[in-house]
Amino acid sequence: LPEPVLKKAAEQMLDYNGTGMCVMEMSHRSPEYEEIIKSAESSLRKLMNIPARYKVLFLQGGASSQFAMVPMNLIGKTGTADYIHTGTWSSKALSEAKKYGTVSVVASSEDKNFTYIPEADLGIFTKDASYVHITTNNTIEGTVYTKLPQTGEIPLVADMSSDILSREYDVTKFGIIYAGAQKNIGPAGLTVVIVREDLMGRQLPQTPAMFTYAIHAEHGSLYNTPPTYSVYIAKLVFEWLLDFGGVRAIEETNRKKAAMLYDFLDESRLFKAPVVKKDRSIMNIPFTLETDEQNKKFLKEVEKRGMVNLKGHRSVGGMRASIYNAMPVEGVKTLVNHMKQFEMENK
Amino acid sequence: LPEPVLKKAAEQMLDYNGTGMCVMEMSHRSPEYEEIIKSAESSLRKLMNIPARYKVLFLQGGASSQFAMVPMNLIGKTGTADYIHTGTWSSKALSEAKKYGTVSVVASSEDKNFTYIPEADLGIFTKDASYVHITTNNTIEGTVYTKLPQTGEIPLVADMSSDILSREYDVTKFGIIYAGAQKNIGPAGLTVVIVREDLMGRQLPQTPAMFTYAIHAEHGSLYNTPPTYSVYIAKLVFEWLLDFGGVRAIEETNRKKAAMLYDFLDESRLFKAPVVKKDRSIMNIPFTLETDEQNKKFLKEVEKRGMVNLKGHRSVGGMRASIYNAMPVEGVKTLVNHMKQFEMENK
Repeated sequence: LPEPVLKKAAEQMLDYNGTGMCVMEMSHRSPEYEEIIKSAESSLRKLMNIPARYKVLFLQGGASSQFAMVPMNLIGKTGTADYIHTGTWSSKALSEAKKYGTVSVVASSEDKNFTYIPEADLGIFTKDASYVHITTNNTIEGTVYTKLPQTGEIPLVADMSSDILSREYDVTKFGIIYAGAQKNIGPAGLTVVIVREDLMGRQLPQTPAMFTYAIHAEHGSLYNTPPTYSVYIAKLVFEWLLDFGGVRAIEETNRKKAAMLYDFLDESRLFKAPVVKKDRSIMNIPFTLETDEQNKKFLKEVEKRGMVNLKGHRSVGGMRASIYNAMPVEGVKTLVNHMKQFEMENK
Repeated sequence: LPEPVLKKAAEQMLDYNGTGMCVMEMSHRSPEYEEIIKSAESSLRKLMNIPARYKVLFLQGGASSQFAMVPMNLIGKTGTADYIHTGTWSSKALSEAKKYGTVSVVASSEDKNFTYIPEADLGIFTKDASYVHITTNNTIEGTVYTKLPQTGEIPLVADMSSDILSREYDVTKFGIIYAGAQKNIGPAGLTVVIVREDLMGRQLPQTPAMFTYAIHAEHGSLYNTPPTYSVYIAKLVFEWLLDFGGVRAIEETNRKKAAMLYDFLDESRLFKAPVVKKDRSIMNIPFTLETDEQNKKFLKEVEKRGMVNLKGHRSVGGMRASIYNAMPVEGVKTLVNHMKQFEMENK
């Protein structure tokens, strides 16, 4: 999280804007709280240029809940849906969808351990698919779609958990965008869902009320008590990002940060980047040394220097730098310097 | 929320225990965060004297999610469940359950606008009911069970959202206890579920992974990213309550606070308490004046004095004092004094 956001949150902990209350203590039906949630929505709409025909929902349960919520709300139309399989998270999404209808994996990069994004032309999609599901940025594998699949009339549904607000996306290309907030927005326990109005109201009969987009939309995300404090922190992050210059400005910074790492990786004789160049994520950058022993040694050394969370996922191994919006350029510089030093010392 | 909790949260916003990080920034797989969630669980187990054969889950989605999650996980055994209907929240719970099986309303206090708790002897329950559902404290109507229904071998499931940790309960009398955290625990966006181990694994085939108790239990509430900051605030509240002397001590204080209000209401010629004496909640105390005009006048006057959230729910009308654990005795005294003054001025 950006430091100015945390400072403001600390300042307002015992008194939000002269109310004498912490946001956590406010009724979600109070005018003060309604102002917070409306302002959060309006800032997000501005940041992502979200058209009025899309609803913005602030929900709970993370992307893992959306893995079921998407099919429960959409697959009923035809009973079938298409998934593009690009890693751990798309795997979870499609397993969950199978409970509710026929799921076709129309493209996959499993053959090369998910180190690329497969081609997806209009021709590959099932004719009566209710939707096509993609994971725009693959957190664990470090890949990203640089070109969106052309799905024609079939709504494109995207899990954008790890790259929402990190780069510009044209919202009108999607039927639904969803994202767990804990990467680029901040607080865990909040899920942002952007859903095209005409896709609501198609839920299966056994869909829980809390898993029904139409119900949350009808109540402006206040069907039940929302995660009030997380929405407030998200609002602060959105405002910080607007001050920063918006998504275009942060994307530029993110590309610079990522380039620093990739440039070094491509020159290094010791470190390797497994992902093909054209599909490289600017958020999650996996890299490896030649042996597991070297990986362990490197991780141990950087941890001593206070750099945590650099271990790669067990399915990929090695290291992974997650350089979300809030990571300052300095942080990436420091990491690259450590890598250079390690290379020097371990030639 | 108790003020010491907010102060500690503000202090630790930029640096939790020397980690240099806010809890919101921690990975939920980090040792620091695991210590937080384990410590929260252990404090709650101590406070409620929870036996080892019950799992404690920290989930998302509030009681509204539990309304579906309970039947999706339990009703499959026989296809049928019994509900006791005592107000707005039990109504929502039983409507949701009807999606998943046959629901019998075996007792109800609807005949008298939910101003009492109906008798519930073993004889009234459906022989093959998978469970019996109650709402221990009815937030809107201001009633509470002073004697639990005797359900024999049928598991008793309780929505304890508005009185968990306010009074002593014998956990072993229940199959499942669930509670949205926003009343007595603190942060919205966290749901506490206490579930007897033998009741897990019975979920219906279409149950989302995120709605499956067994999955959350297997992963120690870390199946996906939990609402990390809310769990941390809950931990602080649990510690505050342990310091206070535990549930027995807070119950004593809560009974004193409630008695101050009820004593005045029973003596007043202007104010009335609609709930029958034996079933009165010590958390939520509805009261009315003789006319709607008087109610409005009273609400306007107390609001001027900074007392907010006193308006009764539209289904009950009048006023409602919600005096959760964190409400100090002084707060109740101030309210009673205002009521006395209003009575003097409006004889």
